[in-house]
Amino acid sequence: MASRICDSVLVTGSNRGIGLEFVRQLVDSPSPPVKIFAGCRAPNGPRSQDLQELAQKHQDVITVVQLDTTSPTSIAEASKLVEAKLEGKGLNLIINNAGVNIPGSLAETGKQEMVDVYTTNVVGPMLIAKDFHHLLCKAAAQFPHQTSMSCRRSAVINVSTLLSSITRCPENFYRSPMYPYRVSKAALNMLTRCLAEDFRKDGILVMSLHPGWVQTEMGGSKAPLTTAESISGMMKVITNLTEKDSGSLLDWEGKNIPW
Amino acid sequence: MASRICDSVLVTGSNRGIGLEFVRQLVDSPSPPVKIFAGCRAPNGPRSQDLQELAQKHQDVITVVQLDTTSPTSIAEASKLVEAKLEGKGLNLIINNAGVNIPGSLAETGKQEMVDVYTTNVVGPMLIAKDFHHLLCKAAAQFPHQTSMSCRRSAVINVSTLLSSITRCPENFYRSPMYPYRVSKAALNMLTRCLAEDFRKDGILVMSLHPGWVQTEMGGSKAPLTTAESISGMMKVITNLTEKDSGSLLDWEGKNIPW
Repeated sequence: MASRICDSVLVTGSNRGIGLEFVRQLVDSPSPPVKIFAGCRAPNGPRSQDLQELAQKHQDVITVVQLDTTSPTSIAEASKLVEAKLEGKGLNLIINNAGVNIPGSLAETGKQEMVDVYTTNVVGPMLIAKDFHHLLCKAAAQFPHQTSMSCRRSAVINVSTLLSSITRCPENFYRSPMYPYRVSKAALNMLTRCLAEDFRKDGILVMSLHPGWVQTEMGGSKAPLTTAESISGMMKVITNLTEKDSGSLLDWEGKNIPW
Repeated sequence: MASRICDSVLVTGSNRGIGLEFVRQLVDSPSPPVKIFAGCRAPNGPRSQDLQELAQKHQDVITVVQLDTTSPTSIAEASKLVEAKLEGKGLNLIINNAGVNIPGSLAETGKQEMVDVYTTNVVGPMLIAKDFHHLLCKAAAQFPHQTSMSCRRSAVINVSTLLSSITRCPENFYRSPMYPYRVSKAALNMLTRCLAEDFRKDGILVMSLHPGWVQTEMGGSKAPLTTAESISGMMKVITNLTEKDSGSLLDWEGKNIPW
């Protein structure tokens, strides 16, 4: 029997695109997690039907959780609900996938656009890491103290992007300026790095993943990767993460991306 | 006669600390700019007295400009005022110095802290670059098309920090977590890099400067550098910037800092 990625996992923004495919591949894996918490803003909205159908088929494993990552109240409530469902156990893995992008040349970008995108893409993951920290600590503590860090033990994965790379910006800026998105994702990388340092003492691994350019609503139909290919690659990367990867930015094939 | 840094310059957050010292050294330089616009949030407030005294002494050169970098309206009005004062000429140099820091362990940091610091440290410089862009273009166009980029011609300098370096975060995180500040300054570096690409076609140089750890209200009294030493170093760096420095992050001695 294949060893499971982890016992419990929360995926945010899980009603479509990359998030939904993560939930699908997690539940379909040879040895699925015992509990998958599928966070989404509007569980009963028309855009959550696919997720609800999947959850219906795997009622024992998937719990759909109302989670608006722009709302501190919603995050705090989701943390309490997940804690109750875990019945004294910790939460092993958080995949901070919820994110937004908008057209973003300088002409199209104002204060509101910058703040809105930052709130979803950076402040949300920060508040989630903070409000679920005690559950991640509990999961880490269920392993012997000297166990290496891993997603099986306790981890936070922030879904970032190649466009977050300040180093590589000159290569791709003209193709897609995207000021609010790029700036927020570089900020998310710093958040990842800070959390990796902060949570190291607790045995919690924190890193960023670039899913590739994927055929989703956000990526568009010209993207070279299907969501299935991207997530299948990221699942392999996640499974193999160790101590040395905490604080890093890797792509869906495990290749390092410079800051 | 020493060649002047530039004909006209705007310094934001110029009523104290690094900003005030920039204005002082600019006006005291052997060949000062013809016009120095000293932006500050509350020109008539008690914390702007030193700047007002300096401006009084150099009435022909220094114009104090009301500029609240968190307010799109204030930025737009400042741009109009500066344009009028320039009487048809362009603006050569903007030093985006206005910035804030607050205590910032994870426990101390919530949505409001993250958004407030981001608004001042990132959205402000973006809106300033956008609203003053036509004046920077005009300044660049006053030089022959093939002239190399420089601060004498047309440039935006964003005041960043060593703590913006994602690469170097593990070295200094425990000494000063500062989540909102670090995350905002990494975001500012991406903004710098985007603007450098965007404005290259206009002949406008854009880069980030780390002033060092300076004895200001923000830096505290234990800092090793006086503001005079820091600004004198940065003035040298600014004077010598060329094309190859656009999109870079340098410290007050001209040394490169990794992203």
